Amino acid sequence: MDFDLVVKNGIIVTASEVLQPGLEIGIKDGKIICIGIALPTSSSTHIIDAEGAYITPGGVDSHVHLAQKNSPTGDGWETGSRSAIAGGTTTIIAFASQPKDATSLYPVLEDYDKKAKDQSYADYGYHFILTNPTKAILQDELPVMAAQHGITSVKLYMTYEAMRVDDRQVLDILFACRSLGMTTMIHAESHDMINLIIEGLERRKNVDPFFHAVARPRIAEDEASYRAISLAELADAPMLIVHMSSEVAVNHVREAQTRLLPIHAETCPHYLFLLSAEIKGKTHDHFSGAKHVCSPPLRHHPKDLEGLWQSIANGTFSTFSSDHAPSKYDHPGGKRLGLVDGIPRFTKIPNGLPGVETRVPLLFGQTPACQPPEKAKLTLPRFVQLTATNAAKLYGLDGRKGSIAPGYDADLIIWHPNDTGAVTISQDLMHHDIDYTPFEGVHVGNWPRYTVLRGQVVWDKSKGVVGDMKYGQYLKRGKGQVLTGRVGNLPRGMNEDERRYWL
Amino acid sequence: MDFDLVVKNGIIVTASEVLQPGLEIGIKDGKIICIGIALPTSSSTHIIDAEGAYITPGGVDSHVHLAQKNSPTGDGWETGSRSAIAGGTTTIIAFASQPKDATSLYPVLEDYDKKAKDQSYADYGYHFILTNPTKAILQDELPVMAAQHGITSVKLYMTYEAMRVDDRQVLDILFACRSLGMTTMIHAESHDMINLIIEGLERRKNVDPFFHAVARPRIAEDEASYRAISLAELADAPMLIVHMSSEVAVNHVREAQTRLLPIHAETCPHYLFLLSAEIKGKTHDHFSGAKHVCSPPLRHHPKDLEGLWQSIANGTFSTFSSDHAPSKYDHPGGKRLGLVDGIPRFTKIPNGLPGVETRVPLLFGQTPACQPPEKAKLTLPRFVQLTATNAAKLYGLDGRKGSIAPGYDADLIIWHPNDTGAVTISQDLMHHDIDYTPFEGVHVGNWPRYTVLRGQVVWDKSKGVVGDMKYGQYLKRGKGQVLTGRVGNLPRGMNEDERRYWL
Amino acid sequence: MDFDLVVKNGIIVTASEVLQPGLEIGIKDGKIICIGIALPTSSSTHIIDAEGAYITPGGVDSHVHLAQKNSPTGDGWETGSRSAIAGGTTTIIAFASQPKDATSLYPVLEDYDKKAKDQSYADYGYHFILTNPTKAILQDELPVMAAQHGITSVKLYMTYEAMRVDDRQVLDILFACRSLGMTTMIHAESHDMINLIIEGLERRKNVDPFFHAVARPRIAEDEASYRAISLAELADAPMLIVHMSSEVAVNHVREAQTRLLPIHAETCPHYLFLLSAEIKGKTHDHFSGAKHVCSPPLRHHPKDLEGLWQSIANGTFSTFSSDHAPSKYDHPGGKRLGLVDGIPRFTKIPNGLPGVETRVPLLFGQTPACQPPEKAKLTLPRFVQLTATNAAKLYGLDGRKGSIAPGYDADLIIWHPNDTGAVTISQDLMHHDIDYTPFEGVHVGNWPRYTVLRGQVVWDKSKGVVGDMKYGQYLKRGKGQVLTGRVGNLPRGMNEDERRYWL
Amino acid sequence: MDFDLVVKNGIIVTASEVLQPGLEIGIKDGKIICIGIALPTSSSTHIIDAEGAYITPGGVDSHVHLAQKNSPTGDGWETGSRSAIAGGTTTIIAFASQPKDATSLYPVLEDYDKKAKDQSYADYGYHFILTNPTKAILQDELPVMAAQHGITSVKLYMTYEAMRVDDRQVLDILFACRSLGMTTMIHAESHDMINLIIEGLERRKNVDPFFHAVARPRIAEDEASYRAISLAELADAPMLIVHMSSEVAVNHVREAQTRLLPIHAETCPHYLFLLSAEIKGKTHDHFSGAKHVCSPPLRHHPKDLEGLWQSIANGTFSTFSSDHAPSKYDHPGGKRLGLVDGIPRFTKIPNGLPGVETRVPLLFGQTPACQPPEKAKLTLPRFVQLTATNAAKLYGLDGRKGSIAPGYDADLIIWHPNDTGAVTISQDLMHHDIDYTPFEGVHVGNWPRYTVLRGQVVWDKSKGVVGDMKYGQYLKRGKGQVLTGRVGNLPRGMNEDERRYWL
Repeated sequence: MDFDLVVKNGIIVTASEVLQPGLEIGIKDGKIICIGIALPTSSSTHIIDAEGAYITPGGVDSHVHLAQKNSPTGDGWETGSRSAIAGGTTTIIAFASQPKDATSLYPVLEDYDKKAKDQSYADYGYHFILTNPTKAILQDELPVMAAQHGITSVKLYMTYEAMRVDDRQVLDILFACRSLGMTTMIHAESHDMINLIIEGLERRKNVDPFFHAVARPRIAEDEASYRAISLAELADAPMLIVHMSSEVAVNHVREAQTRLLPIHAETCPHYLFLLSAEIKGKTHDHFSGAKHVCSPPLRHHPKDLEGLWQSIANGTFSTFSSDHAPSKYDHPGGKRLGLVDGIPRFTKIPNGLPGVETRVPLLFGQTPACQPPEKAKLTLPRFVQLTATNAAKLYGLDGRKGSIAPGYDADLIIWHPNDTGAVTISQDLMHHDIDYTPFEGVHVGNWPRYTVLRGQVVWDKSKGVVGDMKYGQYLKRGKGQVLTGRVGNLPRGMNEDERRYWL
Repeated sequence: MDFDLVVKNGIIVTASEVLQPGLEIGIKDGKIICIGIALPTSSSTHIIDAEGAYITPGGVDSHVHLAQKNSPTGDGWETGSRSAIAGGTTTIIAFASQPKDATSLYPVLEDYDKKAKDQSYADYGYHFILTNPTKAILQDELPVMAAQHGITSVKLYMTYEAMRVDDRQVLDILFACRSLGMTTMIHAESHDMINLIIEGLERRKNVDPFFHAVARPRIAEDEASYRAISLAELADAPMLIVHMSSEVAVNHVREAQTRLLPIHAETCPHYLFLLSAEIKGKTHDHFSGAKHVCSPPLRHHPKDLEGLWQSIANGTFSTFSSDHAPSKYDHPGGKRLGLVDGIPRFTKIPNGLPGVETRVPLLFGQTPACQPPEKAKLTLPRFVQLTATNAAKLYGLDGRKGSIAPGYDADLIIWHPNDTGAVTISQDLMHHDIDYTPFEGVHVGNWPRYTVLRGQVVWDKSKGVVGDMKYGQYLKRGKGQVLTGRVGNLPRGMNEDERRYWL
Repeated sequence: MDFDLVVKNGIIVTASEVLQPGLEIGIKDGKIICIGIALPTSSSTHIIDAEGAYITPGGVDSHVHLAQKNSPTGDGWETGSRSAIAGGTTTIIAFASQPKDATSLYPVLEDYDKKAKDQSYADYGYHFILTNPTKAILQDELPVMAAQHGITSVKLYMTYEAMRVDDRQVLDILFACRSLGMTTMIHAESHDMINLIIEGLERRKNVDPFFHAVARPRIAEDEASYRAISLAELADAPMLIVHMSSEVAVNHVREAQTRLLPIHAETCPHYLFLLSAEIKGKTHDHFSGAKHVCSPPLRHHPKDLEGLWQSIANGTFSTFSSDHAPSKYDHPGGKRLGLVDGIPRFTKIPNGLPGVETRVPLLFGQTPACQPPEKAKLTLPRFVQLTATNAAKLYGLDGRKGSIAPGYDADLIIWHPNDTGAVTISQDLMHHDIDYTPFEGVHVGNWPRYTVLRGQVVWDKSKGVVGDMKYGQYLKRGKGQVLTGRVGNLPRGMNEDERRYWL
Repeated sequence: MDFDLVVKNGIIVTASEVLQPGLEIGIKDGKIICIGIALPTSSSTHIIDAEGAYITPGGVDSHVHLAQKNSPTGDGWETGSRSAIAGGTTTIIAFASQPKDATSLYPVLEDYDKKAKDQSYADYGYHFILTNPTKAILQDELPVMAAQHGITSVKLYMTYEAMRVDDRQVLDILFACRSLGMTTMIHAESHDMINLIIEGLERRKNVDPFFHAVARPRIAEDEASYRAISLAELADAPMLIVHMSSEVAVNHVREAQTRLLPIHAETCPHYLFLLSAEIKGKTHDHFSGAKHVCSPPLRHHPKDLEGLWQSIANGTFSTFSSDHAPSKYDHPGGKRLGLVDGIPRFTKIPNGLPGVETRVPLLFGQTPACQPPEKAKLTLPRFVQLTATNAAKLYGLDGRKGSIAPGYDADLIIWHPNDTGAVTISQDLMHHDIDYTPFEGVHVGNWPRYTVLRGQVVWDKSKGVVGDMKYGQYLKRGKGQVLTGRVGNLPRGMNEDERRYWL
């Protein structure tokens, strides 16, 4: 029991417990070896005194867009992963996106691997975005990707002309993933509803950034979510609906979960903290609303926020991810693409917000660690589930990432003790390569004092980023777990026989 | 007050009342002129003594396929309308179906008009089936069709390769119909779910007629119904979902009606009386299940019937139609198309059942007129609503068809008094040009003794069809009424402003 | 066909139809004999020309408190029934209320009969209020009351110390009524919740009239309604929940109706038109809020009104009654009882509002007769159902009251043609013996021009009340009809056997 | 780091994780000091080799009746706690039951303390059963009981004449508990429904044990549960509904949890494993059904079990308790009380079943530890939550009981490795003082090999009970946690102001 590092004097939080103050974490070779009282140390043991602060698992952000071609002014691996660790996130799962005309995933993976290699401060992996799910990809390539490359999840779009798959393709992918134990992520918005509204808006010359929020109403998300759930129910395959923003859509998920369908839901910081008023822009720069253009859009009413916070607390959401998908604002290839000859065209604004750095502190700020008990919106264990544990389990990193227990990677956030860590978010504190943060001015009650990745301090609030850009490792992931419901249900009203005939 | 015909000594039933026995109906020039006690008669007055029997409005069957090209062995106008009046139906609304390659509705109408003219025993009109809703059709032709030809409703398919429209087309049609006050009927089944299952069934060589019922599970109807309702909600346009067969789908309608969305639902006799066991066929003729192949298919469990009867009673269904869409069974161009080289291929079996003649008696048989009160599945006024009044109102025939009141066409069913009209349904009693009835052997407690169309007895049970094939008139219909909910709702969570931006 | 009266040139509305303009109603001996076109008249026929106006059935107000001992300053029969006919109501069902210490209903009936006899302008009947349902009353007296006196309904209170029955008594009454085919009305509020809140309010000296609305929150109605429905479900007996004011409670009813439970719901004008702001009183007379004290109380938010209007339109409510239960305001024995030594005590304010006169015009004002189509809150047939037909059927007056058809009593409201009947409600227009109307200043688009009771004009807007106080007849009622759902359901999850063991 | 005991080579399961095989648990002075890899041991360290088996927290059974006067033939502390540890339960929370005529809780506590002292193999505490909640008890005694005696929960009955409190008393207790942070447990069945049915059954001489299951239908539980939830909502106080057996009632809980009401639910082994067929008895001993008489009763249909298993899996249930409340069967003062002069009288049969010993193995048998993955009804972490963690947290034992982590009491179940622990439950294996087990013949895939209480092996399957009857300690409990929802909600439709007026 000879430790490289002992973290002492903290309050460890797991997905189910807030442990008693004063426990110590003994770390060796990047792993947690021991949790206990009065661990032995030697002269070679590095010691961090948490001074009574909370210690939570390093964040796992399972929805991050880095170095994607369709976002030329967004973050690459260096800046994106730097931003992550500065905000307490030690694991990133980004996307390797199949171009519509690509008929194999191998070159896609190669391309993304090249960009990430030796460029990440954080550990990382990929989900494939499937835009053209050929038979060969589904039958031949995905099994190899899962077994050899540890890529055990895919993402689909029900909207965006360049990316969308139709319902039949959704089904084909779900069936393929089911047999491989892979998880399917889905962006659920009704393409046809949105297009119709966009045409109406353009016809009426309603093209300011704000109209982006009008173009994608909640009903578009509600319908597509119900459809996605139904497709997953037919396939009896696990699914996660990404970045949910509408209460009715979330109710569909809740109802499915009650029936034990393996339907997971994700939401993002911007849907919990921001409203569409942000997209209206500032007086001096009317176009600045473009900064807040993302899909689904920010919603209009405080009641929308309430509904989502309720689902954070009652367990409907499994994960809370950043959907970090930024573009620079004041840059011709960035959000400014939405200004055509000086005239706004909301449809041309690149979608997405930066958020990988602010995600964890924003949610931590709503726990009893930072709020009087009656104002806290979620418990500390629920915070851990949402920011780390659940994503790790769902995406095949269980036993390695997402928890503080012997055997796990020593990925930790050590918070500031008491009230010493409060911060007002502002762009000059950020470490991304983007020229704004949508959470400018939001006060959070604490910020990671140290981020520890596999036993190394990679972020020290008093010094800044202290990690090495080459330190992040590629994560070959295992099969994911079903966190809600189970696989093995019959579609409603169908019996075993009826299904055996065709499946 | 000089009447051509007085019907006396009956019990008149309307959509809201069972009137006191003994009232008399005075008819002149095909219209009801008077309802009262002791009407004056003259020597020229023809008198029908109902002998204490119930008198209900002549049936309005708003879902009938006649003389469609895709059903070459089905009924044409002569035989179909003959079958209708023999079963108490005096008004038929059939379909004029746009071929996928047709870019104008005018030739379609002309074609159908030619086939119907002077060939109908019953009054009749058309719904257009839109398969290719071009801008010209929606903007230029539909207004003319409504105003000049009295065609004020359209039907769409979400499935069938040859007919289906996509969600955007559904929206375009809904918006066009909304501005014209037209009603949109929709066949709601998920095309992609069904196709996937069919491929699985074929791969496993499960191709007997029975597998038709496996290929189109309830979840396919549930999802498509929710989608259809959402599209109608966005468009704020009235819709009727045809031939509903699944309880979950009907619950979506109920929920929409609670919120005052103008969503109507229809079901058909076969979904209330028959189960998929019928499709298994007979020992001596395994293929005979083909007779019961229709879409959605007959469902598997008695509980399915219960759920639908519940919705008959609680008011969720607005109309009860035959979906008369037959093909001959023992005929090479009919159901036998599903035998390819002697091997069954359920996908090749023409869909649809005959039912225009049996529809009204089947439902009447479940009222207190034929059942002890505790067994009756619906009241007599509800029977009238479902078989006549609601379809008349919904499809623009209010004030003319569907009720027994002064000013209305004198379209009546005079039933047999007491228990004298019981019948066991069998093919040899039928008047269609089809070689079977799916309701063979079903006992009904009464049968129309007389069918009266605009004051003329056209069916006399003791003599048979006494009408004239040329007597049926084309009905130029007016705008339909919304029977449930209202037009004028905002889509969920959208406010007036948000909608004004694009609509 | 020799008529005493012919009403011509109107638009007759029934519970299911708006008939074509110009039909005539032939009346003889107080009954409608004939409806038709160009009825014959003789010199002795009185003719009323409706001048194109709507004609609807005389109102049936099934919830009226007259001459009750617990309301000494309320209306008696003369003034209450006068007020009724002036507002278009031709039938009143009032209450004969059993004192808690009475062990027989015979003296109760005698007492009420004495007060009503020869004192009513309108036809009338009674519901018994049961406060002490002894075995003898349930088993021996109710059958006689139904068979010989035509009293076929009872009312219960779940709250009010002096009136309430406990759950077991509710069940006993439901079972007794079930076997007699009687309908049970129930006032559903949680007594214990309300008492607890009242104690808290008094402890904090919150005793102004307004606190009445705080003392009886919606959750008290929601819980009691669910409980009442469950008791009725166990008993398999029809029930009507009176004066519903809360959307959640109404949702319980809707859900029960979906499952075909025979649960009916009633609401009242004040819950549709007024909010609790009224109870705050006026600056110059802070206590004037007492005028609006009723139970359940007026609710706080416009959203509450919306929910109830929705249930008016979607059919959940079967009846719309006045709950006319007034006390004089400026009178020591009236509302002023709530001022104790000049200090308000909301618990001492007699509950109830006057409304028998304004009920029908208030609702008519929301139909397409008075509103542009897109603003109308209900259809004309729905208006007829709610104000007349449904109450008549539910309470055993079918075939006699509540509709315009041959055989029915000639009870009619003839409205003013076009826009000529608009009125702003004010106390000086009222005919009750109360010193205020809660609807002061409310504009209604029309008012009954003539009220006709059994063929006699009893109200002529241009002349005032023209009827005779002795003209009203006592109505011996028959068994009521179940309007929604049916009797014959098994309580959820119980099978036939399980019930047979104990029932 | 000198351990008294090291448990090595096991798979530790917590409420959120299945940790990697081979971790070791270091224990000293009855506490877990350390969890880690390769812990140091000395010659004085006792070592248990788990041989690869699962290690779960010692069971916390929060619903156990011992030594209650109303069950004279039931278990006392010695036999009940012996039975507990033999089945892996190390903590018992039993009841101290207030007699209806007692006006103080002090003598109640004294009485129960006397019986338990030095008589328990397991650690233990009490809930008070309140039957007569006087003001003095609620205001003066409960605070003392919580602060000085660590009794921080109470239980109420909505039924049983001798125990029941009315709705107002429920409210009073909820408000009192709310201010003390105490949890209220409630037995929710409608007293009045049940009594009415019992009278009917007795009238028809249906008095066999089986009719107990008929007398307490699910609707009685559904109604009372909705009522209890509504009362808790008004009080904004945490509640746990005990021993839930009906799916509709559980749906009420689910809906409340969705809205963040702090409503917890408990179920018991017999509701998950047994049906009412058991109560029918055996051919040779018709009365033997009495063994299975408990309240709520076993339900009739396999579908009932399914609904409850679903709620086990989806998280609606917080706790899974035994409701160990036995009476001897073949004993004149036990179940035989239900035979009066040889004639069965189900109402006289003492309610309740033994189950403290079988509870934990029965549920463990349904996890992936004992079932193929597709048959497992719950995950291992969920098993831990239900049998230990949640009860510990809810009842104020967090940090001490219910989890395996440093700082907690070393209460462990060490299971048999692999398949070596399978057992068929039979009475001769039991350690209670009851003459039967209701689970006779049920096969379970594993049984605790060792039960460890505060570091001492108290049960060794190969040797039997090895603990000392005086070892069990009284647990002074702290405030409980809210596990689902939160305190701090406004009752539906009420705003802050409206509540402040009275609360």
